[in-house]
Amino acid sequence: MALRFIAFATIGASVSAATRDRSRVVLAAPAAPSRNRDSTGACRHDLPNYPLDEVRAHLSAKKGGHVWVTYKCGVYDVTEFIEQHPGGVKRIMLAAGGDIERFWKQFTLHDDDGVRDILERHRIGNVKDYKAPAADANGAASAEAQWAKEPERSPALVPLSKRPFNAETPEGVLDEYFTPNDMFFVRNHMPVPVIENPEGPNSTFCLQIEGEGIIPHCFPIGELKSMFPHRTVVNTIQCGGNRRSEMAAAYSEQGGAVKGLNWSNGGIGTASWTGVPIRDVINACRAPVTPSIKAGQRHILFEGADKDPAGNFNVSVPWETAMDQYGDAIVAFEMNGEPIPRDHGYPLRAIVPGTVGVRNCKWLQRIRVQPSESQSVWQQHDYKNFPPWQAKPDPSLPSVYAMPVQSSVTDASYDPGADALVAKGYAYAGGGNGIQRVDVSFDGGKTFEATASILPVPAGAMEKVTPKTMRDTWSWRQILLQHPTEEIRAKPQPCSEGGDGGASCYNVCFKATTDDQATQPSVAQYNFRGLLYNGYSCREVKVE
Amino acid sequence: MALRFIAFATIGASVSAATRDRSRVVLAAPAAPSRNRDSTGACRHDLPNYPLDEVRAHLSAKKGGHVWVTYKCGVYDVTEFIEQHPGGVKRIMLAAGGDIERFWKQFTLHDDDGVRDILERHRIGNVKDYKAPAADANGAASAEAQWAKEPERSPALVPLSKRPFNAETPEGVLDEYFTPNDMFFVRNHMPVPVIENPEGPNSTFCLQIEGEGIIPHCFPIGELKSMFPHRTVVNTIQCGGNRRSEMAAAYSEQGGAVKGLNWSNGGIGTASWTGVPIRDVINACRAPVTPSIKAGQRHILFEGADKDPAGNFNVSVPWETAMDQYGDAIVAFEMNGEPIPRDHGYPLRAIVPGTVGVRNCKWLQRIRVQPSESQSVWQQHDYKNFPPWQAKPDPSLPSVYAMPVQSSVTDASYDPGADALVAKGYAYAGGGNGIQRVDVSFDGGKTFEATASILPVPAGAMEKVTPKTMRDTWSWRQILLQHPTEEIRAKPQPCSEGGDGGASCYNVCFKATTDDQATQPSVAQYNFRGLLYNGYSCREVKVE
Repeated sequence: MALRFIAFATIGASVSAATRDRSRVVLAAPAAPSRNRDSTGACRHDLPNYPLDEVRAHLSAKKGGHVWVTYKCGVYDVTEFIEQHPGGVKRIMLAAGGDIERFWKQFTLHDDDGVRDILERHRIGNVKDYKAPAADANGAASAEAQWAKEPERSPALVPLSKRPFNAETPEGVLDEYFTPNDMFFVRNHMPVPVIENPEGPNSTFCLQIEGEGIIPHCFPIGELKSMFPHRTVVNTIQCGGNRRSEMAAAYSEQGGAVKGLNWSNGGIGTASWTGVPIRDVINACRAPVTPSIKAGQRHILFEGADKDPAGNFNVSVPWETAMDQYGDAIVAFEMNGEPIPRDHGYPLRAIVPGTVGVRNCKWLQRIRVQPSESQSVWQQHDYKNFPPWQAKPDPSLPSVYAMPVQSSVTDASYDPGADALVAKGYAYAGGGNGIQRVDVSFDGGKTFEATASILPVPAGAMEKVTPKTMRDTWSWRQILLQHPTEEIRAKPQPCSEGGDGGASCYNVCFKATTDDQATQPSVAQYNFRGLLYNGYSCREVKVE
Repeated sequence: MALRFIAFATIGASVSAATRDRSRVVLAAPAAPSRNRDSTGACRHDLPNYPLDEVRAHLSAKKGGHVWVTYKCGVYDVTEFIEQHPGGVKRIMLAAGGDIERFWKQFTLHDDDGVRDILERHRIGNVKDYKAPAADANGAASAEAQWAKEPERSPALVPLSKRPFNAETPEGVLDEYFTPNDMFFVRNHMPVPVIENPEGPNSTFCLQIEGEGIIPHCFPIGELKSMFPHRTVVNTIQCGGNRRSEMAAAYSEQGGAVKGLNWSNGGIGTASWTGVPIRDVINACRAPVTPSIKAGQRHILFEGADKDPAGNFNVSVPWETAMDQYGDAIVAFEMNGEPIPRDHGYPLRAIVPGTVGVRNCKWLQRIRVQPSESQSVWQQHDYKNFPPWQAKPDPSLPSVYAMPVQSSVTDASYDPGADALVAKGYAYAGGGNGIQRVDVSFDGGKTFEATASILPVPAGAMEKVTPKTMRDTWSWRQILLQHPTEEIRAKPQPCSEGGDGGASCYNVCFKATTDDQATQPSVAQYNFRGLLYNGYSCREVKVE
């Protein structure tokens, strides 16, 4: 893939309501041909037939070997694709030499025309003497069972995928400082684990602490709660793919496809989280420091109870981040004053303020101190800042921890009574960086002519925020613009929907600046995973 | 001034050798008419005459009053200009009702055609019965005396102004991690104070600690050195106006003048600084904390021995910044292992890593704890992130502490032996943010196609760097690109100098990204003071 991406071609592209169409997972360039369920894997007379024994012999790409898989009647040589598999080499190799369909039933993300199209490009033949299996009631029931205990979800969430469940915070509550639990965006990688009554007298659930320099101990939840001081932090969590749909739109004309769920601007939310400092829990288990681990070279791994055939979900953060001097990185058991809902990690979740969502491990069951990062796909293959020319995962790139300065317009309209443009939105930066200013453009980002208000944090919330420096913060801020149209009437923009008999249009954009003077780019640099999108956010407003 | 500035008009503007012409101070739009010494203040027959008593009565702009000044035969009503005076209201008001020339002799920055032009725009009349004074040998000698003891300076420095002395680090040493003391850029606001033999037996020099919650004490240097642990930090210092000339070039066509010294890319340098932690010095003087000062609402003021008629230089930083948990903010007495040179603050300098140059107060003689920021012009009128539509100082804007992510190409050439493009430069971010990656464009910033090497810190230097987190750093990194031209030969750019019979040109640009994923904008937003410029840095390379 030798495409080159023009970085600035779409300055001022208006984001219409259409970009909040979250009906499909983006997995291929929009113009690519696609296949439906029926044609993929159908027997083809123009291709050779291979007996299953021959397929099973193609197990490894090492030493010039090839990896084959089957899907229904189809035989596929996926050797070239292995390194590009978004889920990692380890997972795709589980199917080497065999049927890939059974894994796709578990990883239902693959139930997508784009995925089937990618598979079919690697078609080399048919399974000899292929017989379509009779409907396998047992197998289907087994695959179904793992999804049987998903939690109830609010119909207000904006779903992106069903299995695993992923959904956005509805846009209507993005202008509230605290996101209600039942409307908080959900990013699941696997089925939601079932951990029933973990504090009950018969529960075996405990949080395992282990690793280098640690005397291992498994803390029942009651012990965590009674042994350590409780700490409440207000923390914004943002998915690494928030606003991916806008990166897709910005680069689609140049063929810059992005892989992943088609997040609009609702892959973000804020809650107050109550728990105990990770620092205190680890310090309680520390042996005299082992000299083999140098300062500045430790990582803390978080393992969740969610798992797939390749193992449990796990990620890591640098030691210094988890051991936050203010105790703000916590093992949380409450979200907005209630037990953490199942979709958000019940009963325990790692909250590591300032880091990208994925590091805030849900269903936390293990914390390990180790000299290197997690080797999981979530750490090594994904959630990286990929250069624009890169089209596959690269474990040598550094992992993303903090996300760059971000803002989004969530609503923009004309108030005829006040003769004013009114726009709402949010601004946020990772790494504890505060928002200093949000500038506003009325011409799609070409010029900036006003500053929007950064709304005050609601009464009571500040008491939950650590008094660190005057400038640092872990949470977003809501933004409000009320601008008299008379000041800008001289420069109307053409309306994207065409002639409207006298109506003027304005393409209202936000651009946030942090206390460290970091700003948003007009259009964020392309990456094939559509991560870290923070280009200007714009909305067209029509003034009659 | 209702100009609007197009933010993205000059993407890919090539920076030729001409932009390193630092021969003049930029104080007006390039196209503005200018006046020379002889015509400014000359008597004019078309204007009324005012007796000096009438001039002296115009002392205040309050209650609708007017402020007049004289310059030679000229009378000027500067009422409208007072608020726009880059040096602040307080300073210009020193001359109210009187002769402004005697102040211009002290503040020699005013010896500039652009400044004289601004003055002449406010001309209202002539001094009645004006007699040109005989040459005032005493007055001239007095004005001259304050400059008589300026230090010797290396001819390698690239001067921007003589009085006060300001000069850039020569470009040839910007690709060295440690900047030699005698080639370190100099940013002086006033004459260099004369502090002779401050550690001698008869010296009265000491560092005064005072303010709220402090039991005052004045530390002789020997006491500082013996009482507190010594700390060495490697810290990059960057002037807030570094690369101002590039902002001027980017916006000149739209009339976007910038005020200030015409810094190219050499308003930056790195040294190892040795001293004692500010934290330790202040803690040694702390009374029980006064309840009137809340956590997160204290500032620490630094006062230098340099002064002008309005008072001593002073600036402040937030308490938490100066009280750095690692003790990295120091009262320094050594620079690169030697006593700090006079131009850099001899004998003591505040080193506050991660902050803009101006906060690192030279000739430090006083530290004060107080509930609010310094009220000096350097804190309240300048070194702010001014919005693009603003044309005068605004004390309500937040002060700049950390500077945004920055990079600069310092050399770019074609290596015919290796058939490769070779580019060198530096990358830096304030606030302790590390540089994660530097991407390279060959087409002036439209596309990015390669990653440059971040050169390792030289052996020995790391021992001087605090082991904070794995990611934080106070210092810049040198950047090196060696790129085979065969990979980019298909897409040559036109050479800016026109047809060269077969030569191809490439406009090589760097774009740095921090560990927190902050990136540089293509062109930084305009501000009238030309501060914080961090747009892409580009150099044209001709390949024969």
